[in-house]
Amino acid sequence: MIEDKQPSRTSISSLGEFKLIKHLTQNLDLNNETSDLGVGDDAAVIDVSDKNKVLVSTDFLVEGIHFNLSYMPLKHLGYKAVVVNLSDIYAMNAIAQQITVSIAISNRFTLEAVEELYEGIKLACKVYGVDLVGGDTTSSQSGMVISITALGQQEDSKIVKRSGAKNNDLLVVSGDLGAAYMGFQVLERERQVFEVNPNAQPDLEQYSYLVERQLKPEARKDVVQLLKELEVLPTSMIDISDGLSSEILHLTKASGHGCKLYEDKIPLDPQVISSCEEFQLDSTMVALSGGEDYELLFTVDQNDFEKIKANPNFSIIGHMTEDSVSYLMTRGGGQLELKAQGWDSTEAQES
Amino acid sequence: MIEDKQPSRTSISSLGEFKLIKHLTQNLDLNNETSDLGVGDDAAVIDVSDKNKVLVSTDFLVEGIHFNLSYMPLKHLGYKAVVVNLSDIYAMNAIAQQITVSIAISNRFTLEAVEELYEGIKLACKVYGVDLVGGDTTSSQSGMVISITALGQQEDSKIVKRSGAKNNDLLVVSGDLGAAYMGFQVLERERQVFEVNPNAQPDLEQYSYLVERQLKPEARKDVVQLLKELEVLPTSMIDISDGLSSEILHLTKASGHGCKLYEDKIPLDPQVISSCEEFQLDSTMVALSGGEDYELLFTVDQNDFEKIKANPNFSIIGHMTEDSVSYLMTRGGGQLELKAQGWDSTEAQES
Repeated sequence: MIEDKQPSRTSISSLGEFKLIKHLTQNLDLNNETSDLGVGDDAAVIDVSDKNKVLVSTDFLVEGIHFNLSYMPLKHLGYKAVVVNLSDIYAMNAIAQQITVSIAISNRFTLEAVEELYEGIKLACKVYGVDLVGGDTTSSQSGMVISITALGQQEDSKIVKRSGAKNNDLLVVSGDLGAAYMGFQVLERERQVFEVNPNAQPDLEQYSYLVERQLKPEARKDVVQLLKELEVLPTSMIDISDGLSSEILHLTKASGHGCKLYEDKIPLDPQVISSCEEFQLDSTMVALSGGEDYELLFTVDQNDFEKIKANPNFSIIGHMTEDSVSYLMTRGGGQLELKAQGWDSTEAQES
Repeated sequence: MIEDKQPSRTSISSLGEFKLIKHLTQNLDLNNETSDLGVGDDAAVIDVSDKNKVLVSTDFLVEGIHFNLSYMPLKHLGYKAVVVNLSDIYAMNAIAQQITVSIAISNRFTLEAVEELYEGIKLACKVYGVDLVGGDTTSSQSGMVISITALGQQEDSKIVKRSGAKNNDLLVVSGDLGAAYMGFQVLERERQVFEVNPNAQPDLEQYSYLVERQLKPEARKDVVQLLKELEVLPTSMIDISDGLSSEILHLTKASGHGCKLYEDKIPLDPQVISSCEEFQLDSTMVALSGGEDYELLFTVDQNDFEKIKANPNFSIIGHMTEDSVSYLMTRGGGQLELKAQGWDSTEAQES
């Protein structure tokens, strides 16, 4: 969209909304055997075998709150909107299979803009192997709102909730933390530079990982598959959408325990460390409160230590305690009580 | 809310969003055996037996587009938002069992306002026997957006799509049509009167049915149950959210047939007829294009005629034809081609 200097533009209102949803959802393949019926009827039909459970998760993305179109290309936005939802399903140790997508858009968006958004949505569906089975498009008086509902399945005995962590269980996180937040810092700085000097050419090379984590986050479907291969069934799990500390507190509270989190074990990418220095931010605070990492935080029994410890996808960052209070064990040997500090109070509460 | 002259008001921002969703969803009972896990984890878990299908439907309600808070009390809005979605599930001949509710609200709404909205949502859940199993609350920059996803179940062989109508099948509608649209006309007129004279006391007595149909529509769960008792399995079905003509065209197109609709068979409440005279509107046009009736439109085999004909819940309004064009057979003996004329182009496309 950015490259296209002479785009043809179609106003949404010229098309009408029936035609719009039809246009956007044409040529949608249904790939999962369980997706019996997709877009085009009153409801999608999902086939379910006898021992499986259906999992449902829903999220809103609101313009000006969760995304800013001045640096978020619409295709990336569509991709991210799906990923954020799938992440919730993976956080139950389940595999996502269907999504429904609802969008409300004002007249300032062209058909091409909405197509761009749907391209990202469809790309995410392809990458993650999920079917778009329904949705709703409607007008809004201002801005864009996206609501996505994801459906997943898993055998009853393999569903992992937030509430199963036991005393002494190991606290494990996938990937690394804080990069999406630092990507946001970088993009926000560039946006301000651009406002002053529209001819400025940003050089984001050295922040490439950070920007990618912010603009095109991925959900950890691979972790769910990896845990299965390793024959590790976590005792509890949650995805990290609001920052590590906030998610740890959700998990420990639901499980009725506390934990000790070791500062020196928190996985940080070198770009996070260098950009934190540049922005004069504390990298531990960024990992604890940054959010939007979409990594998985989970607990495993001590007996699974050998299966987890050498895997490059995982970092063991602490352990559960009998106590109900959780502590950050600092590099200097101190002990600080963990507090929920979502960096952005407008972050959505998932369910 | 209207009666409460000295309400205590709590700003949403003072509460924070984690607390908000917790506050709103506390004491939620899960009533359906299949609702294994509701609000409070990453996803809801729904148990499914071996032969059943899960049905999913999702809808947006956007302030200023789908509702106007100047005459729509928030409790009614919450109720209607749920009903609109359940209607889609019933239109598949399925029974709705779970919903997820996502709301985006600006700071102008107080906690009490959102509670009011949720009261309506919870009331609808109680009336229709569905469980609220998840959702999302978030900020918006302006106005309120509600997104609801409904999940239902039905045996595979009993799911009724839009596409099954055969030549000569009878076209049947539940209840009566046009009242919600006339209720909208009445309320809109009162709103304009109120703007000129805020002391005006509207007398809506003679429009009570119309206003109720607009402000507190009901979904026809009872029709699904009644059809089961009558041992009638419709060949196709759709709910009437956008007006009879638009829905007929959806159904005939999906089924690959046309139909003849008899003007004198269209069921109209006496209040619709009298208010159409008062507003100088054609009552047939109101029924065809009004929308928001949430009645069920379906086709049945001619063999089911005896089971349907005497039932006060149903009106046989026409029949399917081999042709792909659909006609309105007028009272005067004329024949006009049916056109989709949703009275409001902003009405959402369901899926």
